[in-house]
Amino acid sequence: MHIAQLKNLSTWVDVSDGSEFPVYHLPYGLAKMPDGSVAAVSRIGDLVINLHALAAMGFLPVDFDVNVFLKESLNDFIALPKALHLKVRKELMELLMGENPALKNADSAVKSRIFYPITSTQMLMPVQVGDYTDFYSSKEHATNVGIMFRGAENALMPNWLHMPIAYHGRSSSIVVSGTEIHRPWGQIVPSAGGNPIFSPSSQLDFELEVAFITRRGKPLGQPIKADEAEDFIFGLVLFNDWSARDIQKWEYQPLGPFLGKNFGSTISPWIVTLEALEPFRCHGPKAEKPLLPYLQTSGPKTFDIQLEVDLTTESGVSTTICRSNFKYLYWNISQQLAHHTVNGCNVNAGDMMASGTISGPEPGSFGSMLELAWKGTKPLVLADGSSRTFILDGDQVTIRGFCEKDGLKIGFGEASSKILPPIDY
Amino acid sequence: MHIAQLKNLSTWVDVSDGSEFPVYHLPYGLAKMPDGSVAAVSRIGDLVINLHALAAMGFLPVDFDVNVFLKESLNDFIALPKALHLKVRKELMELLMGENPALKNADSAVKSRIFYPITSTQMLMPVQVGDYTDFYSSKEHATNVGIMFRGAENALMPNWLHMPIAYHGRSSSIVVSGTEIHRPWGQIVPSAGGNPIFSPSSQLDFELEVAFITRRGKPLGQPIKADEAEDFIFGLVLFNDWSARDIQKWEYQPLGPFLGKNFGSTISPWIVTLEALEPFRCHGPKAEKPLLPYLQTSGPKTFDIQLEVDLTTESGVSTTICRSNFKYLYWNISQQLAHHTVNGCNVNAGDMMASGTISGPEPGSFGSMLELAWKGTKPLVLADGSSRTFILDGDQVTIRGFCEKDGLKIGFGEASSKILPPIDY
Repeated sequence: MHIAQLKNLSTWVDVSDGSEFPVYHLPYGLAKMPDGSVAAVSRIGDLVINLHALAAMGFLPVDFDVNVFLKESLNDFIALPKALHLKVRKELMELLMGENPALKNADSAVKSRIFYPITSTQMLMPVQVGDYTDFYSSKEHATNVGIMFRGAENALMPNWLHMPIAYHGRSSSIVVSGTEIHRPWGQIVPSAGGNPIFSPSSQLDFELEVAFITRRGKPLGQPIKADEAEDFIFGLVLFNDWSARDIQKWEYQPLGPFLGKNFGSTISPWIVTLEALEPFRCHGPKAEKPLLPYLQTSGPKTFDIQLEVDLTTESGVSTTICRSNFKYLYWNISQQLAHHTVNGCNVNAGDMMASGTISGPEPGSFGSMLELAWKGTKPLVLADGSSRTFILDGDQVTIRGFCEKDGLKIGFGEASSKILPPIDY
Repeated sequence: MHIAQLKNLSTWVDVSDGSEFPVYHLPYGLAKMPDGSVAAVSRIGDLVINLHALAAMGFLPVDFDVNVFLKESLNDFIALPKALHLKVRKELMELLMGENPALKNADSAVKSRIFYPITSTQMLMPVQVGDYTDFYSSKEHATNVGIMFRGAENALMPNWLHMPIAYHGRSSSIVVSGTEIHRPWGQIVPSAGGNPIFSPSSQLDFELEVAFITRRGKPLGQPIKADEAEDFIFGLVLFNDWSARDIQKWEYQPLGPFLGKNFGSTISPWIVTLEALEPFRCHGPKAEKPLLPYLQTSGPKTFDIQLEVDLTTESGVSTTICRSNFKYLYWNISQQLAHHTVNGCNVNAGDMMASGTISGPEPGSFGSMLELAWKGTKPLVLADGSSRTFILDGDQVTIRGFCEKDGLKIGFGEASSKILPPIDY
């Protein structure tokens, strides 16, 4: 369908004009319902759709056990074949479109078991993340960090233009939007040098990222090729890779970031499917060096996703401190997954792979405080008149994302988290 | 009990003299039984004990749902409170000890549903690893690698003596002993320099490690202190952290090892409990620098575990190429877990934390080919007359471990895996 048709898709459900969750969107999430039960859900406008109720009452014909919609995560649903996911999306969209009477004309008692105001539910962590990988795929970010720590001459490492650099991160501490995080303690070397001290981090940072969630992969030893990679990707979420720069700086040689990262990461609760993102497909930057064949892709392999970061101080005043875009990333998700598995590494349904900080070319598009305030040398002035070089206790950082083209708009919602003071140690 | 009493614990079960699985040991594993079912098991001599059958038939009184012994992993059992684990061990040992008639005098039909010859079962991956962390806790190993890559002057990084350095690894590719692994493909820079090529690794290596498996930890934000850390550790397994040195060398700056490691790791199937290891408790090396309080431990906090590595060539000839000991590690498991959680990082039941390569002071105790053949400069001559600088296709690497003191001996079994040729790409 042409995008003009998609934006005009009508629905019998009451959706406000300009909603980022039109009938075309239909993301997936996991929600605690008003009765305390947990169910897989989708969303239209400001209504949550209970997929288990929908399927169990026969409104959504499915070729699998409807109990996959009643688990503590979406992993079992995500592990189903892609063809079944496509069918669920198609059936669900048709059910809600136009004046389709199948559900529209059902008793209000029936509909009240299917539709819930979003304010009456609590969005939960949608997947149990088996493995989490963090890429480093923004050339602007890698270059900025390189200039700050190694100088402009050696900003980009020699390997960077040859492969999507990545490292493994911690799955257990990935939390859903709304979860508060304590400022971490750790070993920090004072700026004057000398032995490390034990202290709460004073260089707490966010990182604006987007993560993809994988379908069931191949057995150990069998790579996923770049041209089939998208078939193994279920959808995308917003991702804040909280970082303690002072802890990270002291620990990361020679094996990479560890405690400077694994105290918490925040994701948005709605998984935006690749199918919904299709109209927003676009080209990424051109490769600056010849790529080995296993990393070569053709056609538009990334997506135009507008991203912004708000910082809200304890006084409640918000400032948008960054506007960036997913399409700035040098390496696309097909290249990332092909690289990750080229050695035979296996992936499972529900694994999460984040992009790395998404910085754009302009200073206002840098995706971390480290870059925005340029290592503390250019404090950011906020709307309430206060200034920041890093994140203070009580600050709330909110990442938002959406796609918009020719009048069709779909939202990612938000990944938002507040920093609490360090615990008493 | 004194060790002399422990070694003389008698059992009515037929156990051969010198068995590494005496009635005192009682490790945990997961097995595929002859009828194809999967069950949690223990072991005495060469018999596997079906814990589900034992509990379901009332021979093992348990204060929890016996179905935790019927899951696809031991995670639910490991997530139970430590007090319940201690009770299972005590009840099981008493049932098998001396001439206790409770089970001894049961019908042979009953006993045949409980005891199985180990050769009739297949040992499976015992846990579903939520997160896997690899430490770098052998000073000898870190020093050897440092000398080879940075010279003797800067061998040890400045942070190394201040904290147990670690990085996150890949959970999905940890496999149980006996699983064969293909030589990985990857980006490798030729020794003459220039652009990377795409090639199977020609520097495939093993790493002799031991990993601990955690109990359920604390909520996100709450550290586990060093003096309580052992309460959160369920047991230990042998661990081979397969490594492709040429892939690792090109990719690891600045974020650490990735594809050079995540194509596969091999563990032994039997989890040796901390309780069984108690008689083999000992002191590790003295700290060479003052430690921050959160890393200070007192008393003997490590274990005397003898380790060896055999390399078996395709002709079937085995050579023991390394003899080392867990007690050489500079950082103990209490320090490792306290460090890992000091920033609030949460751990779950079934997480795995490996030691890093365990090298001792003598060349024959080095725990990797990289060190044994000193970066290819001192080829190892094997018993069949062939020589090795790294691992060849068809080579099988077997790690064995045991504890022995005053006549009491308990075994870890083995972590063994054969390297297959690279797949066709």
